[in-house]
Amino acid sequence: MYTESALLIVGDELLSGRTQDVNLYRFSGILGEYGLPVKGAKVVRDSVQDISRSVHELLLPGRILIISGGLGPTDDDLTLKGVAKALEKPLERNPEAEAMVRKKQRQYGLGVPESALKQADIPAGAIPVMNPVGIAPGVVISYSNSAVICVPGVPSESRALIEPCLAAADAIPGRTEAVLFIRTWGLKENDLFDSLKETSEKFGVIPAYLPSPGRVDVKVSGPGAEEFRSAVITKLAGRVYSTKRDETLEEVLGRKLVKSQYLLSVAESCTGGGIGRAVTSVSGSSEWFAGGVISYSNRVKTSLLGVSETVLASWGAVSRETALAMARGVREITGSHCAVAVTGIAGPGGGTDEKPVGTVWTAALTPKGERADLWRIGGNRETVREGAVSRSLGSLLELLG
Amino acid sequence: MYTESALLIVGDELLSGRTQDVNLYRFSGILGEYGLPVKGAKVVRDSVQDISRSVHELLLPGRILIISGGLGPTDDDLTLKGVAKALEKPLERNPEAEAMVRKKQRQYGLGVPESALKQADIPAGAIPVMNPVGIAPGVVISYSNSAVICVPGVPSESRALIEPCLAAADAIPGRTEAVLFIRTWGLKENDLFDSLKETSEKFGVIPAYLPSPGRVDVKVSGPGAEEFRSAVITKLAGRVYSTKRDETLEEVLGRKLVKSQYLLSVAESCTGGGIGRAVTSVSGSSEWFAGGVISYSNRVKTSLLGVSETVLASWGAVSRETALAMARGVREITGSHCAVAVTGIAGPGGGTDEKPVGTVWTAALTPKGERADLWRIGGNRETVREGAVSRSLGSLLELLG
Repeated sequence: MYTESALLIVGDELLSGRTQDVNLYRFSGILGEYGLPVKGAKVVRDSVQDISRSVHELLLPGRILIISGGLGPTDDDLTLKGVAKALEKPLERNPEAEAMVRKKQRQYGLGVPESALKQADIPAGAIPVMNPVGIAPGVVISYSNSAVICVPGVPSESRALIEPCLAAADAIPGRTEAVLFIRTWGLKENDLFDSLKETSEKFGVIPAYLPSPGRVDVKVSGPGAEEFRSAVITKLAGRVYSTKRDETLEEVLGRKLVKSQYLLSVAESCTGGGIGRAVTSVSGSSEWFAGGVISYSNRVKTSLLGVSETVLASWGAVSRETALAMARGVREITGSHCAVAVTGIAGPGGGTDEKPVGTVWTAALTPKGERADLWRIGGNRETVREGAVSRSLGSLLELLG
Repeated sequence: MYTESALLIVGDELLSGRTQDVNLYRFSGILGEYGLPVKGAKVVRDSVQDISRSVHELLLPGRILIISGGLGPTDDDLTLKGVAKALEKPLERNPEAEAMVRKKQRQYGLGVPESALKQADIPAGAIPVMNPVGIAPGVVISYSNSAVICVPGVPSESRALIEPCLAAADAIPGRTEAVLFIRTWGLKENDLFDSLKETSEKFGVIPAYLPSPGRVDVKVSGPGAEEFRSAVITKLAGRVYSTKRDETLEEVLGRKLVKSQYLLSVAESCTGGGIGRAVTSVSGSSEWFAGGVISYSNRVKTSLLGVSETVLASWGAVSRETALAMARGVREITGSHCAVAVTGIAGPGGGTDEKPVGTVWTAALTPKGERADLWRIGGNRETVREGAVSRSLGSLLELLG
């Protein structure tokens, strides 16, 4: 019935720097999964005219428009007035909505003043949807072959109401088009794009590339998507860490370590703790992560990790030899089975002609083998550091096989 | 010259639920401060047509339109094409922009392929602005009595470019109302609001509260702002770490440590490396940061940090005694002067009635004294961990005096 969606986010506070909106982001993910891709979004002030105009603009045939914010009882809650104006339907006290508001006001130990009942005045013919975590009901309005859904702006309320409202609008189809994910590490967006160009043309798909530091997700759907994914997995081999939308590199690594009953430790120089932070972002990581050493100074590299002065003097702190010595050192002192180490030049200072900013050595050890890799990571201090975190963990994952 | 602004946020990833946009929020605050209130905002996909249409719609007379995203070198970076189409100006290789791109590519140790130079093709007559933290230059285009500013979507780059671009567009009027900042750590937004209510009423100001995990900025302007700020600094004492808009807690701490010629080390349990990562986000932190130990397991707490089995057995891993022993241990083995330690329950599992999720002990040591603090931090795993990072560093800063 509906094939796409649009979002209208209402609230002065969102355009004044006072409040960070999260509904646009959350709704986008949910709607995409239901096969209702978001084609556009607007953020407007609490103004009947702005709301009304935006409804006109965004409510195209076959489209479902989600509006968040401006459903409360105060004078600057104007969303339903704007919608009523745009759709030329009068606002009417809806008995079902009134019962919801009365029940909720009592439940929260509040009286039922006329101002609260304003939340039951909805466009004629609209369907109210009970708000499980607040007072203002959600509102669903069918309009020709499109529909408008209004939910409160408060994130907990909008999250609780979005799916019941989509259901009430009959907008949750059984058949969602599958979106396939190929999640990669250690590849630059440009390089990945170039290396998959032929494959995507061959299977007639147009993949989307979604980069974050050190990781790029490739997203593809439609005819040829399955075949494209299989070909890419073969082509990229160890650089693909997952094909699940919501699975992180750290989670995949953790599962693999648990399965082998291995404990991991880390030795970090330029990442300064970022690898440890990344792996411990997974709840339950204490099952497979022992800890590690942040060896930011050379003194800590020698005194705690046992990296020899000779290695540091001959090869430098940013070298294969130092990275491997750091990994071996931390594995020994923590009594773990596996280790990763990173040493590099995050910038902006410290680069040389031979070792420019972005030069990073990673090392990974398992009971069965070891590896060290040299990377040149582009970008600023933050992206070099985050990129190094991904590459160190990815290289261990690949080594584990 | 300009009296208001609008925002256009470009990127498929923002409408697919893959990435949460932060530019809309950040820009809104900055533009408001410069007296250019944001009148509307749109989020669109990477589509020349959508971008071009939105420029038409949003670029009203007297208005400055800020566009973020889509300035990179790949095929789906289409912002300048869309802008060129809307304004009917051809894209041209700009020599100044080309020099910027070449310089940056070399600085990051990358070659200069033609694909990179695409970032120097900007609308005829536009002004390129050097990107201090990335490659793609900002682009400023004057158009009748309005202007368009394009910046990359990556938050660190857009943040660094927005003010230089506003200056290049001559959009920063001389008469900007002074906005005063009071940056606090370790206070909850609600508590801070309550505790400053009387003071704000007394001086007739309406402060804005801008929270991030473990930190809240209070922003105030207009008559009474100076007096309010002085009163608040006195009232909150050590919980105010800066009154400068762009100064982080880590930078303030670093400066103080350098001044005293102290080296810092860290011992981290539930934060897993987050404190080290935060302090090493400051470039030049090797001057004052030695490193530390991520003692995620109890075994590492005893073997590396020398926390006694008795302390762990009697008081538990999350206790004043363990936090202090961790800090003393890391200070000794790294040979540093100061140390911070954190141990806590980040959740979602691991909580008990006595020590619920969010229970965190921090310890801080300097050559002159030590302290340990118990915190109850609300929120999810991520906010507990980030909140613990801020509190550990804040408590050291306060101890340093």
